[in-house]
Amino acid sequence: MPRLDFWYELASTYSYLAAMRIEPLAKAAGVEVRWRPFLLGPIFKAQRMETSPFNLYPLKGKYMGRDMARWSEMMKLPEFVPPEIFPAHSLAASRIALVLDDAALPAFTRAVYRAEFTEGKDIADPATLDEILQKLGHDPAAAVAKSGEQAIKDKLRANTEEALKLEIFGAPNFVTDDGELFWGNDRLEQALAWATKN
Amino acid sequence: MPRLDFWYELASTYSYLAAMRIEPLAKAAGVEVRWRPFLLGPIFKAQRMETSPFNLYPLKGKYMGRDMARWSEMMKLPEFVPPEIFPAHSLAASRIALVLDDAALPAFTRAVYRAEFTEGKDIADPATLDEILQKLGHDPAAAVAKSGEQAIKDKLRANTEEALKLEIFGAPNFVTDDGELFWGNDRLEQALAWATKN
Repeated sequence: MPRLDFWYELASTYSYLAAMRIEPLAKAAGVEVRWRPFLLGPIFKAQRMETSPFNLYPLKGKYMGRDMARWSEMMKLPEFVPPEIFPAHSLAASRIALVLDDAALPAFTRAVYRAEFTEGKDIADPATLDEILQKLGHDPAAAVAKSGEQAIKDKLRANTEEALKLEIFGAPNFVTDDGELFWGNDRLEQALAWATKN
Repeated sequence: MPRLDFWYELASTYSYLAAMRIEPLAKAAGVEVRWRPFLLGPIFKAQRMETSPFNLYPLKGKYMGRDMARWSEMMKLPEFVPPEIFPAHSLAASRIALVLDDAALPAFTRAVYRAEFTEGKDIADPATLDEILQKLGHDPAAAVAKSGEQAIKDKLRANTEEALKLEIFGAPNFVTDDGELFWGNDRLEQALAWATKN
């Protein structure tokens, strides 16, 4: 079965859209998805950007909000609510993601995105993360404790370093078995077609 | 008949893709297209960018080249050949575009893009423009002479100023009758759907 690596950042608006639609599309295409959270901060810094391009270029940021509203409507998602702080501080949530096993990662990821982009919640707030973990049947205290361990910190750093090596410069991305990189939620269909073309 | 304004820049790679596919798609959707050339230079300057984001952010530029190669293959276009100077100096070609009448604009635009992105030609070279005009049955000397007139210079400046007012920050763009802005070749289908939704 061909596999697609889904590289996403928990503070990224377009990663949210991709997370909400990748599973049914990949299933229909017969492609296995590996969920790979990473941090955009170091990726932006490597390009000499102090923050998201949506902050550096306000017109682009404003357009992104409108584009997200349109996509949310097309995908029948709840109304898009831009977070008060953008990009959100996603370090704590990303470390927790890496505590969970692969089978639990998609649901956790989607729950974080829903809180962040449709409920106006701060995903850096431990209460937000506790509530998400609780609802999904995880032990919040245990997950949070484990997320502070060095092995988890190293895992997130390794993911981000691998993203840098893949020449990733934004999010989301889809990488096929043969190393083809597709950037952007709007390239998901092309990535799946590439993954299954042989 | 609903109308879509197609805002494009003759040095823009993704505008090229849109120019190559907009006519059949718009015809099928029952949408009239108005071709609106403008200059990205002043648009970038207004955002404090000295040049294209594909130069400012080399990884993004490298990815764009790969993405263009993939799109060219999907669209059965000739192989994508990145121009030696990027972005090309598109002022002369843009002024000539505004000399031509609306019916002649699409063919001229596509010919410029083909020369620039598939034949390795410099669209700032008068010989390139002469050849394109000649092949399309225009009088090169007359068109070039007229393109230097103040009225044409003003027309291009007015287009670019209108683009700024529309909060355009890149290219290509599609703007519907009700003022909805769609940015990027990959938003063409959404723009056409929006234009015809009522």
